[in-house]
Amino acid sequence: MDIGIGQRLERLRATAPLIHNITNYVAMNVMANTLLAIGAAPAMIHAEEEAGEFAGIAHALTINIGTLSPPWVRGMVAAIQGARGAAKPWVFDPVGVGATNYRRWVSADLLNLRPTVIKGNASEILALGAGAGAGRGVDSADAVDAAEAAARHLATTTGAIVAVTGPVDLVTDGARVARVSNGHAMMPKVTALGCSLTGVVAAFLAANPDEPFEATVAALAVYGIAGEMAGATTSGPGSFAVAFLDALHAITPAEADARARVSL
Amino acid sequence: MDIGIGQRLERLRATAPLIHNITNYVAMNVMANTLLAIGAAPAMIHAEEEAGEFAGIAHALTINIGTLSPPWVRGMVAAIQGARGAAKPWVFDPVGVGATNYRRWVSADLLNLRPTVIKGNASEILALGAGAGAGRGVDSADAVDAAEAAARHLATTTGAIVAVTGPVDLVTDGARVARVSNGHAMMPKVTALGCSLTGVVAAFLAANPDEPFEATVAALAVYGIAGEMAGATTSGPGSFAVAFLDALHAITPAEADARARVSL
Amino acid sequence: MDIGIGQRLERLRATAPLIHNITNYVAMNVMANTLLAIGAAPAMIHAEEEAGEFAGIAHALTINIGTLSPPWVRGMVAAIQGARGAAKPWVFDPVGVGATNYRRWVSADLLNLRPTVIKGNASEILALGAGAGAGRGVDSADAVDAAEAAARHLATTTGAIVAVTGPVDLVTDGARVARVSNGHAMMPKVTALGCSLTGVVAAFLAANPDEPFEATVAALAVYGIAGEMAGATTSGPGSFAVAFLDALHAITPAEADARARVSL
Repeated sequence: MDIGIGQRLERLRATAPLIHNITNYVAMNVMANTLLAIGAAPAMIHAEEEAGEFAGIAHALTINIGTLSPPWVRGMVAAIQGARGAAKPWVFDPVGVGATNYRRWVSADLLNLRPTVIKGNASEILALGAGAGAGRGVDSADAVDAAEAAARHLATTTGAIVAVTGPVDLVTDGARVARVSNGHAMMPKVTALGCSLTGVVAAFLAANPDEPFEATVAALAVYGIAGEMAGATTSGPGSFAVAFLDALHAITPAEADARARVSL
Repeated sequence: MDIGIGQRLERLRATAPLIHNITNYVAMNVMANTLLAIGAAPAMIHAEEEAGEFAGIAHALTINIGTLSPPWVRGMVAAIQGARGAAKPWVFDPVGVGATNYRRWVSADLLNLRPTVIKGNASEILALGAGAGAGRGVDSADAVDAAEAAARHLATTTGAIVAVTGPVDLVTDGARVARVSNGHAMMPKVTALGCSLTGVVAAFLAANPDEPFEATVAALAVYGIAGEMAGATTSGPGSFAVAFLDALHAITPAEADARARVSL
Repeated sequence: MDIGIGQRLERLRATAPLIHNITNYVAMNVMANTLLAIGAAPAMIHAEEEAGEFAGIAHALTINIGTLSPPWVRGMVAAIQGARGAAKPWVFDPVGVGATNYRRWVSADLLNLRPTVIKGNASEILALGAGAGAGRGVDSADAVDAAEAAARHLATTTGAIVAVTGPVDLVTDGARVARVSNGHAMMPKVTALGCSLTGVVAAFLAANPDEPFEATVAALAVYGIAGEMAGATTSGPGSFAVAFLDALHAITPAEADARARVSL
């Protein structure tokens, strides 16, 4: 199968979708810069009083539970209902879902609102999958295999595309599984790059709404390639973060196609 | 008319005014760094319990509605009343005011508290001007001309200096109009540079309190020149943002005078 | 006395402690990047609903009152009680404590919860010390000497290690006093570097729990050395901030030992 990564990036830049993000305080600035760099338009609006109205205007929504509190959860629910009412895709990033009971309860509620894509690391997908009935702990001997099973299960039970990020990313719709090998070891040393990827997934979804599986794979590949480009010219996390934004802005559709390492 | 830009920058650095900012979560860090780089001292204090007291201590206040919620609006009102009670200037940045009803209502309330300067892009000034009775939509065929009329109207009805930012910035007190042509195309690709300009306007106001029109023009010119300096040595948004802070810190009063492109 | 700075840094990297931070909105991103760069793992979790539970999981906690509000204060108290219940160290950063009554009241309450380390600038330590009974104002003719007396008093009355930051940092347990001369003049021109140091102190504490005085001195020295390394290659605050993160990531235990300037 041809994912058409470069073409999807081109469409993102041509449409410059408006992405509505309710994310954590740590990530907001980086996420906005990441979306601007790749060619989308970011907006951060979280209050219950306006989040639903705004979600209907934007082209896609992201929800990240990194720095949670009750008023923000109410804003998240309002935004998701606004997005769903307007048939806009939304991406769920269950940051640290396994860490506290509060996170588990909130995530279970949000999961019921049917995200288009769920994106997390292996531990988060395992924790969510367990909540959805897979019953598998996060201390599995083999995290990758465990996450694949949980991801497929989660995709099947919720109807979402599930993306598991790590040294090799995995994307599944329950039936198909793609693996994306792009990326760089410095990425986890810069805060909020994982959270910001959620925005980029939403931007690819907004520009390619009919093929969420392919759009998600394309987002992960382009993001990882930008990481590789940044890693090639820097040696510390401060300069890497700067070069990463430059790379997201500079990467061409042809480079994306040439450098993507996706296996299906 | 001579705006005396270099001299106003010199006065800002000599007095290092303390600027109290209630701004959105995305912009806080960049705004603080921007104010430090230019030579002012930033403080972010938003709670109703202390915002009014602190606004009386600071030399100027900025209010930005980017990430709004009811408790923050209460803090904004307390801060504005504190600033007004102590005869300190305040700058209003009505981010995205036309996007939702909640923003329109809050902005109308804040406008009644008489900002010293209002700073927005063309859409925002048009939306505010409409709320103030101009009755013109944001989808005008000619945004620049439409914004000039709305800006003049807004200045006349509120008594504020109004700054409209864009490729060419416009500043008016209702009678006079100045245009500032400094700036760089990369500036809108870095999040929060517009929001942070609001802080720089406040710093110029605090250092030049008797001439808010001239202080606002000077702030816009210096900011745009720093953008040009950053753009001359970088080619992506990540490195541009870094070079922009370096330029704000390095720019001399003589450079500001030599490079300013202001027409009256 | 040998502080064993390099060895303590080595232990930090070997254990990669999880540091739970309730800090201000301006600092969150920088603090997370600072902790990642030095080799620790950051988490920002502030809601009353989960902060106490999470503090019991993390290896150390930091509390910073920079952008205060009542729900956050409730989260801070919950987190501190969680940390204390699990015998984890916590570090208190009383940002701007002398600026408003609200800050003074909240700080007095938090001080009663017995921080392991208190870290502030001279004005903050003087304001806290006054609240604790030293009765000395912040307008002392000789801020350094005044802060030393207040710091010793605060350490004695609270049982905390007290660190006073400035051109030369001072650390005391009430009896011993260490001075750390590392650092760079550009550090106060970058926002949140002071706040982020609080996280680094917590990381050294978590890795060296039995010697909080030595751990605090080591944190201040390593941080200041990274500043010197960054200052050697940059000339503006934007590029300094980038180089500072690179330096924190690159600094070796041997460099830390060789470059530390600590007097006891």
